Amino acid sequence: MEDITRDYLQALGEDIAERRDDDLRARFEELHPADIAEVFDRLEDEQVHYLWKLIDVEDRGDVLIELEEDVRETLLASLTNEEIAEEVLENIDSDDAADVVGELSEERAEKVIAQLDTENREDLLTLLRHPEGTAGALMGTELIRVELDWTVTQAVREMRRQAEEVGTVHSVYVVNSAGQLLGRLSLKRLLLEASSTRSTIGDLFREDDTQTVKVDDPDELVVQVMKKYDLVALPVVDDHNRLLGRITIDDVVDLMEEEAEKDYQLASGLSDEVESDDSLWEMTRARLPWLLIGLFGGLAGAYVIGAFDIERFPSMALFIPLIAAMGGNVGVQSAAIVVQGLAGGRTPADARLAPRLLKELSVALLNGAICAMVILGASLVLGYGWNLSVTVSLALIAVIVFAALFGTFVPLTLDRFKIDPALATGPFITTANDIIGLIIYFGIGVLMAA
Amino acid sequence: MEDITRDYLQALGEDIAERRDDDLRARFEELHPADIAEVFDRLEDEQVHYLWKLIDVEDRGDVLIELEEDVRETLLASLTNEEIAEEVLENIDSDDAADVVGELSEERAEKVIAQLDTENREDLLTLLRHPEGTAGALMGTELIRVELDWTVTQAVREMRRQAEEVGTVHSVYVVNSAGQLLGRLSLKRLLLEASSTRSTIGDLFREDDTQTVKVDDPDELVVQVMKKYDLVALPVVDDHNRLLGRITIDDVVDLMEEEAEKDYQLASGLSDEVESDDSLWEMTRARLPWLLIGLFGGLAGAYVIGAFDIERFPSMALFIPLIAAMGGNVGVQSAAIVVQGLAGGRTPADARLAPRLLKELSVALLNGAICAMVILGASLVLGYGWNLSVTVSLALIAVIVFAALFGTFVPLTLDRFKIDPALATGPFITTANDIIGLIIYFGIGVLMAA
Repeated sequence: MEDITRDYLQALGEDIAERRDDDLRARFEELHPADIAEVFDRLEDEQVHYLWKLIDVEDRGDVLIELEEDVRETLLASLTNEEIAEEVLENIDSDDAADVVGELSEERAEKVIAQLDTENREDLLTLLRHPEGTAGALMGTELIRVELDWTVTQAVREMRRQAEEVGTVHSVYVVNSAGQLLGRLSLKRLLLEASSTRSTIGDLFREDDTQTVKVDDPDELVVQVMKKYDLVALPVVDDHNRLLGRITIDDVVDLMEEEAEKDYQLASGLSDEVESDDSLWEMTRARLPWLLIGLFGGLAGAYVIGAFDIERFPSMALFIPLIAAMGGNVGVQSAAIVVQGLAGGRTPADARLAPRLLKELSVALLNGAICAMVILGASLVLGYGWNLSVTVSLALIAVIVFAALFGTFVPLTLDRFKIDPALATGPFITTANDIIGLIIYFGIGVLMAA
Repeated sequence: MEDITRDYLQALGEDIAERRDDDLRARFEELHPADIAEVFDRLEDEQVHYLWKLIDVEDRGDVLIELEEDVRETLLASLTNEEIAEEVLENIDSDDAADVVGELSEERAEKVIAQLDTENREDLLTLLRHPEGTAGALMGTELIRVELDWTVTQAVREMRRQAEEVGTVHSVYVVNSAGQLLGRLSLKRLLLEASSTRSTIGDLFREDDTQTVKVDDPDELVVQVMKKYDLVALPVVDDHNRLLGRITIDDVVDLMEEEAEKDYQLASGLSDEVESDDSLWEMTRARLPWLLIGLFGGLAGAYVIGAFDIERFPSMALFIPLIAAMGGNVGVQSAAIVVQGLAGGRTPADARLAPRLLKELSVALLNGAICAMVILGASLVLGYGWNLSVTVSLALIAVIVFAALFGTFVPLTLDRFKIDPALATGPFITTANDIIGLIIYFGIGVLMAA
C-alpha cells in the first residue's frame, strides 16, 4: 500500500467519528493484515478498539501480532478472554500464539488458555514449557508430516487435511512410524516426480543432509544454522530425533534484528528500545542510566585531576579532552570488533585469549605510534613546548595500548561468563578508559616534572 | 557438522601434504558446500587451491560464494577464465553469479562472461546492468512461470523443464501472454487442489495481493517489504509489470546483516569490517581515520582551554572530562535513536523536523535537570565550592540540551541529503560535542567569574 499520510489518517478518523461502518469494512477488506497493523499503530486507542470489530475475524489474529507492542497491549486489555482465545489464538500459528500468551499476565494467560479447544490448548501448553532463548520457544507445531511407507495418494490426502491448519508449506517432513525425522521431501519433487499415485513416499524420498536443531539448543545456534544453510524452515527435534516442530525464517529475521538493535543500543548508551513516538518519561528512562554512569565517571575524573595538583601545572589541563577521547575511542573500537566477531560466530570456538591480546597489542602500538608522532609534531608547531608535548605523546601511546587491551579483554571475559559482551561497549568502556587515561596522563606528567 | 577444531585442521593438513586424494574426496563428499567453505576459510591459500580440484564440480560454485571475501579473491585469481565460467558461474543462481562477476576486474569480467553459454551470458549481462543498491541488483532470474491458460498437465511439464535450473521452488508465478505478472500460485494449491489434469491454471489461480517491487526500487524497500509481509521470495517487475526475476530471503538476510554491521561499525568508529584474523595493517587502517579525527578534536579542545586562560582558574580543569564525556554520550544516544528509526522504517515518511527537535529538547531538559541536580549535590558535598559547582551544573544542562539537539539534527539532515545517517554516530559526533561542550563550559565559567 502507499504511505500512510496524515490526510489518510484524517479521512479515516472522520469515517470512524461518523460511524461509516460499511465504508470502513470495505477499506480494510482490501488491506493485508500487516498494512492494517501499520494503520492501527498510528491511531488512538479508542479508534483501534472500534475498528477491531470491523475487520474480518480471520484476519484479526494476524493484525494483532503485527502491531507494535504497546498498541497490542492496550488492545489485548480491551478484549475478553474468550475473544482472545477464539478470535486471535485459534487463527494464528502456534508460535505466534505462544508469543501473545507470553505477553499476558500469568493469571490472565491461564484463563485465556482455558477457553481454547483441546488441540490448540495442548499445543500451546507444550510450547510454553520451553524456556525463552531456546529453539523450542521459537518453534511452531504447524507442519506437514508424512510417513515413509505411505503411498503418494495417501500422503496427498493426509496433506490436504493437515494443510488446512498450516499456512505456508515450506517442506514436507518424512518421519518413520516412531515419529523420528528422516528428512525432507520438497513439494517440487512430490509434484514433479510422482510418476504413479501408487508409488510410496519411500520411492521419492532420498536420504539427504536435512539440518535440524534440538529443542533446547540456544536461539543463537538457530540463527547461525538457518543463515549458513540458507534455510526458510528448520525442523526441531528432541533428543531421540523425534520431530516436534519447525522454525520459520521470518521469526529468525525478527530475532536477528532484535539482536542487532540491542547491540547497537548498548554501544550507543541506550538501555532500552526507544522510538520517536515514545513518551517523554520512556525516552528519559532509556537514557538516564548510562548518563549517570558517565556522571560518576566524571566525578572520579575530577578526583584524579585534583589529586595531581593541577594548580602547579595548569597547562596539563589543555590535553585532558584529547587523552580522554582517545582512550574512549580506542576502547570502543576494540570492544566492537570482539562483539561483532562473537555475534557473527566468526570467532572460532577454540580461540584463545593470549594470541588475540598479542595481536591487539601490535595494532595498538602501531596506531599509538602514528598518533603520538602526529600529536608531537602538531603540539610542538603550535608552541605547547617540549615538556608538555612529550608528556602528551607518551601518555597517548600508553592510553591507546591500555584501552585496546582493556576493550578486548572485557567483552571476551563477559562472554566467558555468559554475560552479553555488548554490555562492554559504549559508555561503560568509555567511562572506564576516561579515568584510567587520566591516571596514565597525570602519572607521566608527574614523572616528567620530577 | 561439528566445530572445526585445530585437530581437524591438522589432520586435514597432513592428508593434503601426503596427497591422500581419495580420503580427501570422501571427506568433502559428505559435507554441505557451506561447511566446505567454512573449512576453506581457515586453511592456507595453497591448501584451498589444492582441495578445490578434489571437490565435486557441481558443488564448487556453491562453495565459492560462501567463502569469505578475501579467500574467494585469491581463489578466483588462481582459476582460469574458463574454469570460473564453467565450473562456477554456470552452476550457481544468476544473482550469485552477478555478485561473483562484480568482484572481478572489469577486464577479467568481460573475458569470463565471453566463456559462458548464450543463455547464461544474456541473463548475466542483463543483471549486471542494474545499479548497486537496487532491487535489480539483488534479483535472480531463476523462477517458475506458468501462463494462465495452460492446463495443469502442461504447466507441470513446463515446470519440470524449468525446475532443472531452479534450485528451490518458492512459488509458481502466473503471467499472462505478455509476460505481465498476475500473481502467485502456491505449489501447495497446485498439488492439493488440482482435481483433474485438464483443469487450467486459471481454474486454480485466484487473484491475490501478491507483493512486488520494481526493478529500480532501492534495496531498503526490498528489505522492508519482505520483512513486513514475511515473504521468502519477492517477484521483481518492470514499469509495465512484466516479471523480470525474484529476490530470495537469504539475500535479504545477508543485506540486513551487512547494514546492521555497517551501522554498528560507524557507531564504534571502525571504517571497515574488521575480523580478528585480518592483517595488522588492515586492522590499523580500519581504525586510524576515526582516531585521527579524535586527535584533531583533542587539539581543538586544547585550543579552547588555552584561550580561556586556564592558569587563572585551574580548578575549572577538574570537570573537563565530565563535561566532554556527557556531551559525547548524549549526542550518540540521540543520533542512535534517529538512525534506528530511519533504518527500521519506523520514522514516518512525512515526519517533520520541528516536532522531533521539540521532543528531544524536552527529554534533554529533563535528563539535564536530573544530572545537574545530582552533580550540584555531589560537588558541594565533595567540597568543590559553590561557584565551581554551579558553573558545572549550569554547563551540564546546556551541554546535554545542545548535544541532544545536535545529535538529532545532524543524522536527519544527512538523511535528507541521501547520506548514510549512521555517519553521524560514533566518533564524529563525540568529537564535535567535546569541543562545543568545552566552549559552553568555559563560557559559563567566564560569566560566573565576571
